Amino acid sequence: MPSLMASRVLSGTRPTGRLHLGNLLGALENYKKLQGEDAFFMIADLHALTTEYETHAQIADQIMEVMVDYLASGLDPERCTIFVQSEVPEHAELALLLGMLTPLGWLERNPTYKDQLRELAGRNLTTYGFLGYPVLQAADILLYKAEKVPVGEDQLPHLELAREITRRFNHLYGKGKQIFPEPEALLTKTPRVPGLDGRKMSKSFENAIYLSDTAAEVDKKLRTMVTDPARVRREDKGHPEVCPVYFHHGFFNVSELETVARECREALRGCVDCKMELAGKLNEFLEPIRRKRELWTKKKSEVRQILDQGRQRAQAVARKTLAEAMQAMGLRK
Amino acid sequence: MPSLMASRVLSGTRPTGRLHLGNLLGALENYKKLQGEDAFFMIADLHALTTEYETHAQIADQIMEVMVDYLASGLDPERCTIFVQSEVPEHAELALLLGMLTPLGWLERNPTYKDQLRELAGRNLTTYGFLGYPVLQAADILLYKAEKVPVGEDQLPHLELAREITRRFNHLYGKGKQIFPEPEALLTKTPRVPGLDGRKMSKSFENAIYLSDTAAEVDKKLRTMVTDPARVRREDKGHPEVCPVYFHHGFFNVSELETVARECREALRGCVDCKMELAGKLNEFLEPIRRKRELWTKKKSEVRQILDQGRQRAQAVARKTLAEAMQAMGLRK
Repeated sequence: MPSLMASRVLSGTRPTGRLHLGNLLGALENYKKLQGEDAFFMIADLHALTTEYETHAQIADQIMEVMVDYLASGLDPERCTIFVQSEVPEHAELALLLGMLTPLGWLERNPTYKDQLRELAGRNLTTYGFLGYPVLQAADILLYKAEKVPVGEDQLPHLELAREITRRFNHLYGKGKQIFPEPEALLTKTPRVPGLDGRKMSKSFENAIYLSDTAAEVDKKLRTMVTDPARVRREDKGHPEVCPVYFHHGFFNVSELETVARECREALRGCVDCKMELAGKLNEFLEPIRRKRELWTKKKSEVRQILDQGRQRAQAVARKTLAEAMQAMGLRK
Repeated sequence: MPSLMASRVLSGTRPTGRLHLGNLLGALENYKKLQGEDAFFMIADLHALTTEYETHAQIADQIMEVMVDYLASGLDPERCTIFVQSEVPEHAELALLLGMLTPLGWLERNPTYKDQLRELAGRNLTTYGFLGYPVLQAADILLYKAEKVPVGEDQLPHLELAREITRRFNHLYGKGKQIFPEPEALLTKTPRVPGLDGRKMSKSFENAIYLSDTAAEVDKKLRTMVTDPARVRREDKGHPEVCPVYFHHGFFNVSELETVARECREALRGCVDCKMELAGKLNEFLEPIRRKRELWTKKKSEVRQILDQGRQRAQAVARKTLAEAMQAMGLRK
């Protein structure tokens, strides 16, 4: 397996609101490990528009929320590049160029596309922009010639499309050279974090616990979390492996995990006690994040400066790559 | 009818090679009339890629050819803004934004799309970029808030799409205000210039007479031009209204037009003589253009300066509009 050291890494988060535990465990914890690498973390506001264009979301505000969450949970702008996608025009430019050589069939057959059309059936998503989501994502990755892309399992088909687009570009314009490296997936350890209702934690399912939730909110939400459906009465023995509460013990209460599992299996603990133990641990974990959130929320102009610096670093790379792509395609001498 | 004075006008030419009489009569002559207005003429290299992405066209060279043709035939960079589409990133950026709200069905049902898929059946055009051609075109127009768009009849469905996209944008984000004006077509007087084979003159049909053709080439090409198919023998009476040669007399031999028509109808002139008379007139018309072409071809760095100046003027407008669009969509405060 190739070493991660010195690999260029790119990942992005759609600024569709405050971050929740799903984002934390699925991406942020991973980001923190990748810091110090040559890592680019993008706030993907253009991607957010693909599904939010009708909602009049104040994406600019949401970008600040995500930044506050990032910084509060330990992303260090000195050790990685954080930037806003729409502030680097090269993303739109390369996406347009890559679209020229992307067969419609690749996009129409993309399983994530079909899944999302189903999942978000209430929205009007049969748009040109939504179909082109993977093309924009390929541009994001290729602009930084990223070798590693930290992704959840559900994003794997998109990454495969990015790889196909890369191969097609290299084939059409590389003259035997590989202009863009084929990006590889860096699967996150926890691809699916359950929410309060047991489905994947997601803002749109309204089943999320946010980094910015107060201790009281966390307590209250956890009380409503589903548990092993087979454990109807207190005396029934539980099955921790199917229980969303147990899943979260695995992250926020690691030292007691075996005890939790055993007591659940033997019906020695009830679900409410189990949830309240988790709430305590989770709040312990979130408390320092909450305090830092408060501090960063007051320092908006400093946050803006961090984003400006990120944009400059990102654009220095992006501009060079775009020029190379344009030359390969014959648009520049 | 509203006056043209002080209207913002935008038009573009795909740099797919040297310009021919079809471009001259269909667009260039019109451009010259629009100079002095607030006119933006775009060399649409990104549009060229939608159909030429596989051909390894040296679009950068073709841009210079088009510029030499423009300047030689009388476009005056002091009286209009000439720029290269891909040098103003805002085109790609606004296209990406407009794509978010463009229903796929509008693009798939676009009659020009279907026609072109048929006409260019030899090329692999079932791409994301080709389907999105009208979205990019809408961005081109909207960026300059153009009120008038000089178009040939075949481009009318695209313009109608641009108008629909405009209305949808204003409806979704205008909060009652009209952010973008609805662009209007400025139909050119000669929407269909016949080529040597009688079909629409077009580079891809290899039936074109170029502004850069030598006098000998023009003579030779005109000899092969089709005429009234019903006039088989010299003695047969002709029907000038269906004859491509007669069409061109209407532009390059206006003073003799009635004589040409009468002599053709009465079989008093043969087709070869008629063609050679046209060749003489056409070469008279083209000779000064050829001389100026030669001069401009030697002044490449001056041409480059004209394009730089155009880019600056265009971008000053485009940047402002894009910022307005981003703010309306919630990406900027």
